[in-house]
Amino acid sequence: MSQQPQELRAVEWTGDALALIDQTALPHHTRILHVRDVDGLVDAIQRLVVRGAPAIGAAGAYGVALALLQGRREGWSETRVRAEIARVRAARPTAVNLMVCVDRVVERLADGVDAVLAEAVAVQREDIEANRAMGAHGADWLLKKVAVDRPLRILTHCNTGALATAGWGTALGVIRELHARGLLEVVYADETRPLLQGARLTAWELDQEGIPHYVQADGAAAGTILRGDVDAAVVGADRIAANGDTANKVGTVGVALACADAGIPFLVAAPTSTVDLATPSGDAIHIEMRGEAEVLEWGGVRTAPAGSRGHNPAFDVTPGRLVTGLVTEHGVLEVSAGELPADRLA
Amino acid sequence: MSQQPQELRAVEWTGDALALIDQTALPHHTRILHVRDVDGLVDAIQRLVVRGAPAIGAAGAYGVALALLQGRREGWSETRVRAEIARVRAARPTAVNLMVCVDRVVERLADGVDAVLAEAVAVQREDIEANRAMGAHGADWLLKKVAVDRPLRILTHCNTGALATAGWGTALGVIRELHARGLLEVVYADETRPLLQGARLTAWELDQEGIPHYVQADGAAAGTILRGDVDAAVVGADRIAANGDTANKVGTVGVALACADAGIPFLVAAPTSTVDLATPSGDAIHIEMRGEAEVLEWGGVRTAPAGSRGHNPAFDVTPGRLVTGLVTEHGVLEVSAGELPADRLA
Repeated sequence: MSQQPQELRAVEWTGDALALIDQTALPHHTRILHVRDVDGLVDAIQRLVVRGAPAIGAAGAYGVALALLQGRREGWSETRVRAEIARVRAARPTAVNLMVCVDRVVERLADGVDAVLAEAVAVQREDIEANRAMGAHGADWLLKKVAVDRPLRILTHCNTGALATAGWGTALGVIRELHARGLLEVVYADETRPLLQGARLTAWELDQEGIPHYVQADGAAAGTILRGDVDAAVVGADRIAANGDTANKVGTVGVALACADAGIPFLVAAPTSTVDLATPSGDAIHIEMRGEAEVLEWGGVRTAPAGSRGHNPAFDVTPGRLVTGLVTEHGVLEVSAGELPADRLA
Repeated sequence: MSQQPQELRAVEWTGDALALIDQTALPHHTRILHVRDVDGLVDAIQRLVVRGAPAIGAAGAYGVALALLQGRREGWSETRVRAEIARVRAARPTAVNLMVCVDRVVERLADGVDAVLAEAVAVQREDIEANRAMGAHGADWLLKKVAVDRPLRILTHCNTGALATAGWGTALGVIRELHARGLLEVVYADETRPLLQGARLTAWELDQEGIPHYVQADGAAAGTILRGDVDAAVVGADRIAANGDTANKVGTVGVALACADAGIPFLVAAPTSTVDLATPSGDAIHIEMRGEAEVLEWGGVRTAPAGSRGHNPAFDVTPGRLVTGLVTEHGVLEVSAGELPADRLA
């Protein structure tokens, strides 16, 4: 049964709960988790039931309402309510959208639950609109930059689609737009170890839309690019510093290095809520280290020897000098050519 | 129970059979497979029971004896014997050692089984000696190049140890030598998807020797290097062209790009039997494409959607311009500085 991807909602408010597609169970099981309290939301964010910077941002926006409703049920003080909201805000340290969205909704706290919910709904709606605009700007720019007389072959890393956002997608939104215009030949989707967001989630979204795609090991990305099998790479972002340095899923900077070496565009697609002008450069971005088991085990079964340690940074930082384009809802900045977020988005 | 790594033999002749450690079962099970015929050997090479260019070379050398013995049992013509040897020689297309070692032993065919076996034993013994020499040359060169007053932090990709060779190891031989000198702090071992030779085999060998190490996702390599956590990368090779272009396990060129960007040495360790002067450049190296299931499944369980295709090149080619050093048993060539195999190893 085909599902229209524009109807897919990773994050949805149901009136008294936050309904999340459990992304740890995809592509084999489509389970919906109904979150009704702060503990449940923090756990869902940390376990990656909901993931992707913009989707986490939307979940955090609704999380303010959840904290308010739970506080009302359980008789919390305002101090307690604010402390619980702070827990939501800090549930994952690298993505900036979570903090930005929570802070925006918190401003309506004094106006009550309805006002808070209205703001959260606006956050989600605006993210979808931003994604649509980003998709169009990104596709226009890629077609101009690549300038070939055939559909494009695009590489992407991690999942940046409807599952990772309030809807539609950032990098995957650009890819969808190319497909909608009949100008996409194939997508190379990096599997994205250790949690396989590419093999499980991106491939699932592409499969739903009938977009031709290959899943490949992350290690294959550089070779695929250097062999000339790819016209451009498009990725998302978790935080973009004022100088264009971009934190994104671990493995991204390797894709960027290969694109630079091959002389093909490396496009970062992210809403302006991902741009953090208060962070001057990537050096100031805190990189979340996740548990060792994610790289030492598979499905609960140990693959590495018992004596081995795991090194598991969730993100890496791509220097702005490698970012050919940064597409936001406002258009494209050619970062490596000197168009810095600090100058153009301030 | 600790096993002395210098006693580890991935490939061992037992008098009437070839005993192979089944590397698909490590690190959890140490199974020995006894191969007595050509079908069994070709299957073992293709399923990666035995893997690593020099180990496959040694197995191929004994394979000539196996074909001769099987031919004697089954009454083969000389034409049939030669056809069966050709099947062994072609079992994996990218590694050159297999062809070189088979061809060397085949020259003794007219002298009978004992002469063939003696030649195969010499192939194996010389590979171990070459590895020992390579380890010393490589360690000397790295210590000179990195020039810091503390033990080194080394990144490696795939498995190049005793399991991948006739014994001791190529890149892992260099790492062992640094450890033996007390000048190794830690090893970052890329897990090496899709078949996890790093997480399963390299980590197992390091664990056996008590060498401190982290297993990490392949996608983490570039970020680990760019953050300054690594002093040098050392990898093996499956085939090195006359201009220094190096085919090695998929993911290697991404490590090389990161080393070049970070300005740290990228050292390829391989015996001269891996250098193929008849191949002018990497463009002429045939890259083996392996089955899609390796990237679409895990332990026989599908991870990607049923509609997804897999793209699974087993190797990639690192351009010689990114190879800071190539260490063979004769010493180090600084390939990116212009010391080409074509000029120095001809």
